[in-house]
Amino acid sequence: MTQLGHAAGTDFTGSPVLSGAKKGTSVLVLGAGLAGMLAAYELRKAGYSVRVLEYQTRSGGRNITLRGGDTLTELGGATQNVKFASGNYINPGPWRIPYHHQGLLHYCKLFGVQLEPFIEVNHNTYLHNTEAFGGQPQRYRDVMSDFTGHTAELLAKAINQDKLDQPVSADEKRDLLDAMRGWGLLDKDYAYKTSDFVSLRRGNSKPAGGGPDGAPVPSTVMGRSEIMKSGLWQWLSFNMSYEMQTTMFQPVGGMDMIGKGFAKQVNDLVTHNIKVTKIAQDANGVTVSFLDNGKGGAAGEAKADWCVCTIPLPILAEIEVQAGAPMKAAIKAVPYASSVKVGLEFNRRFWEQDEQIYGGISFTDQPISQISYPSTNYFSNDKGVLLGGYMFGPAAYSFAGMTPEERIEAALKQGSLIHKQYRKEFSNGVAVAWSRMPWTLGCCSTWSEESRKAHYKPLTEIDGRLVIAGEHASYVGCWQEGAILSSVSAITRLHQRAIGTA
Amino acid sequence: MTQLGHAAGTDFTGSPVLSGAKKGTSVLVLGAGLAGMLAAYELRKAGYSVRVLEYQTRSGGRNITLRGGDTLTELGGATQNVKFASGNYINPGPWRIPYHHQGLLHYCKLFGVQLEPFIEVNHNTYLHNTEAFGGQPQRYRDVMSDFTGHTAELLAKAINQDKLDQPVSADEKRDLLDAMRGWGLLDKDYAYKTSDFVSLRRGNSKPAGGGPDGAPVPSTVMGRSEIMKSGLWQWLSFNMSYEMQTTMFQPVGGMDMIGKGFAKQVNDLVTHNIKVTKIAQDANGVTVSFLDNGKGGAAGEAKADWCVCTIPLPILAEIEVQAGAPMKAAIKAVPYASSVKVGLEFNRRFWEQDEQIYGGISFTDQPISQISYPSTNYFSNDKGVLLGGYMFGPAAYSFAGMTPEERIEAALKQGSLIHKQYRKEFSNGVAVAWSRMPWTLGCCSTWSEESRKAHYKPLTEIDGRLVIAGEHASYVGCWQEGAILSSVSAITRLHQRAIGTA
Repeated sequence: MTQLGHAAGTDFTGSPVLSGAKKGTSVLVLGAGLAGMLAAYELRKAGYSVRVLEYQTRSGGRNITLRGGDTLTELGGATQNVKFASGNYINPGPWRIPYHHQGLLHYCKLFGVQLEPFIEVNHNTYLHNTEAFGGQPQRYRDVMSDFTGHTAELLAKAINQDKLDQPVSADEKRDLLDAMRGWGLLDKDYAYKTSDFVSLRRGNSKPAGGGPDGAPVPSTVMGRSEIMKSGLWQWLSFNMSYEMQTTMFQPVGGMDMIGKGFAKQVNDLVTHNIKVTKIAQDANGVTVSFLDNGKGGAAGEAKADWCVCTIPLPILAEIEVQAGAPMKAAIKAVPYASSVKVGLEFNRRFWEQDEQIYGGISFTDQPISQISYPSTNYFSNDKGVLLGGYMFGPAAYSFAGMTPEERIEAALKQGSLIHKQYRKEFSNGVAVAWSRMPWTLGCCSTWSEESRKAHYKPLTEIDGRLVIAGEHASYVGCWQEGAILSSVSAITRLHQRAIGTA
Repeated sequence: MTQLGHAAGTDFTGSPVLSGAKKGTSVLVLGAGLAGMLAAYELRKAGYSVRVLEYQTRSGGRNITLRGGDTLTELGGATQNVKFASGNYINPGPWRIPYHHQGLLHYCKLFGVQLEPFIEVNHNTYLHNTEAFGGQPQRYRDVMSDFTGHTAELLAKAINQDKLDQPVSADEKRDLLDAMRGWGLLDKDYAYKTSDFVSLRRGNSKPAGGGPDGAPVPSTVMGRSEIMKSGLWQWLSFNMSYEMQTTMFQPVGGMDMIGKGFAKQVNDLVTHNIKVTKIAQDANGVTVSFLDNGKGGAAGEAKADWCVCTIPLPILAEIEVQAGAPMKAAIKAVPYASSVKVGLEFNRRFWEQDEQIYGGISFTDQPISQISYPSTNYFSNDKGVLLGGYMFGPAAYSFAGMTPEERIEAALKQGSLIHKQYRKEFSNGVAVAWSRMPWTLGCCSTWSEESRKAHYKPLTEIDGRLVIAGEHASYVGCWQEGAILSSVSAITRLHQRAIGTA
């Protein structure tokens, strides 16, 4: 990994090198999510004596996959029994890995987690605005083609008539016109119009075929004002964002293959069922008080020289922490996003069989926001599971207020506007509201510019013998990569402090 | 497949239904490529007596994959021994399958050919113009971001100053400005500028990280005139074309898994090593004369009631064919493209390890035109094979004129401008010039608008007892789907003629 550098688009430069650890130095890690397990793995490797305390009965944290037979109980008491067919799953938490998340990709490789492409961009999915095009979903490629063409036409005409606001040299004028024509598929008069040429991008209304009657018939371009008004271009923009660019990956078999890969390395260090109640520290070390839910809630204590705390902030904010006022203020200051994901199993993969959609995402202005098609097991005749809704922000609060059954019904109702097969083919579903998960009380940290300025350094800097790690202690919030980078940073600094070089 | 229709973007509506064939009616199929094998499969299934004659010692035609241990001899006598490591391969012919090639996808499923995503669009590959940016390759995402941003800025300014060539309502003006800002990532003054915001698309120069020092530093936007002049936007355009849109597929293990899948169905009908010398017909049937290269070139004859001829036109043009003048003229009229593909094996997958490129294509203005990274076996520590050049048109003729060693040297020299690791990591290569393949003498048909008008119907319509099939007899030329659609059309019409309904 030595050839990686900042310019290459990743902040990860390889496993941390933690040499010279003092034998017998102990570290207590709170939380067995990716950040905690990575800290445990690297610190033990460096020679530290490590113990991990975890609230849940499983390791992995928000790295989670639901399959048939799984059970999920949320705050409020509702319990869902997942009924997916064998081999099907939904990833309620993280679900995709960008190419530049090199820290996570590094540890996936190191721990033998097999990856496969996650299809983010699919030109054959739908973009849907209930208020545009009579509420009819439009194919991604048509919106892309027509938005591009109309934009290029407008700009080409302004250029041709020397109507730009600034002087442009004859050379640049020619380059710009060439670009608008080629990129927008404009005709010789710089017009974007229904034609065989434009159908090379949009596809034809009668597709090209074989034999004497194989000639295609071009498809019809949509009007400019409706395209612009529809706002559907926002999804072209979304898919251009660095975080959504291809090539993306997912673990073969479900996202929790990563958590399981990490756990295989460190599970002997983890005590599950531990509810931390207090984190105390003095000049000599750290004392963590807890209730052991594996032993009927018996009170206990754990001591170590140092502590890496990866407990999500909404939970940590309710725990007594002996730290300086700035860190304590930071713990309480960072808002967490709510998020809801709905997994819907259907009797057949109608999106592939009827609509030629293989992976990718349809977007809608309805609360469900998107429908994501599985990037695995393509062309199967078996049941398939869609991500039938991924709410973030206000819609997530609204969905979290519903019962699981109501969430599924809402997802079916909204999704039916995009896929008419929904009601007929529906089999069963599950709906996860992160604000109701007792061990995190939210999906992930959402730093504002102001909260970052006021609280980020105090949250992330070592306070005595305590350091905080997790996606919330990074600039890559809400991504697993944030947990990895934060953990590498935290243990590197903790090590330097422990051996007296920082 | 009944729900497929033209509007869905494919001309394929399912396996042909050929009912009522007269028992004992015989069909001779010439050529065991995909079109020929499909014809044999469906006609036998319908009750016809079928025999296939094939020039090569293998079935599959241009559906071919080269692996270590394979040998390739071209016209002129040069023989190449492929030295790739086990598991590595190159597809010298077809190499990707668009989502709308439903005919091919249908038969892949029917014949148990396993598919995996082929990565066409990869935002982290390079776009390269030797005359632009000092000859330095630019990341796809940077070109995409800056081309989009500068275009949006220009148009937004023209709109804001009411400089469009046509009246635009206040509503549309607002919609257009919203679109330009959101799609182009413009600031509040409608300017496209280096900023944190723009780096959400371009990526940062110091990437976002974890811990106290995790703040990112934005990357620097490239100038408008150089972007426009570079012409690199053409590859954004290319990847928007219907044929290049995602989701694409490839067979697991090499493209010839399709040919092998087809061959498994019909290989008992195929006689290899047969060089057809004459196709004669009269009112009663077809007589094909041949030399049997499996028997020292012994002359032979085969007779049947009907004939489906899938021999590539440059070969067929040299064979005596008893057909009407229009078909004979058509056979001679269609030009075939030349094409050269170079497969380069390297000691390590440096494009992944050093540059975070997983699948996808880098484009260059050099003759090699592109470098395609393998869409399989990601993250492997083993040797990897690149498509180190894919020449079509003039560059292909120039490369075909070189020895295989010279082609590989040229590909290495040109590719080194994009990947500095080329020379150090190179292991071995193979270079296939389609114009030198004795059994096809070219890559595929390239119909012009004029030749289509003059010769397409006569080529594809049944002439007496002879019908022509193959990608050249379709509007989906140079794609396997053309062979499938053409074959389905040809045998459907032949069947109707044979049972007297057409």
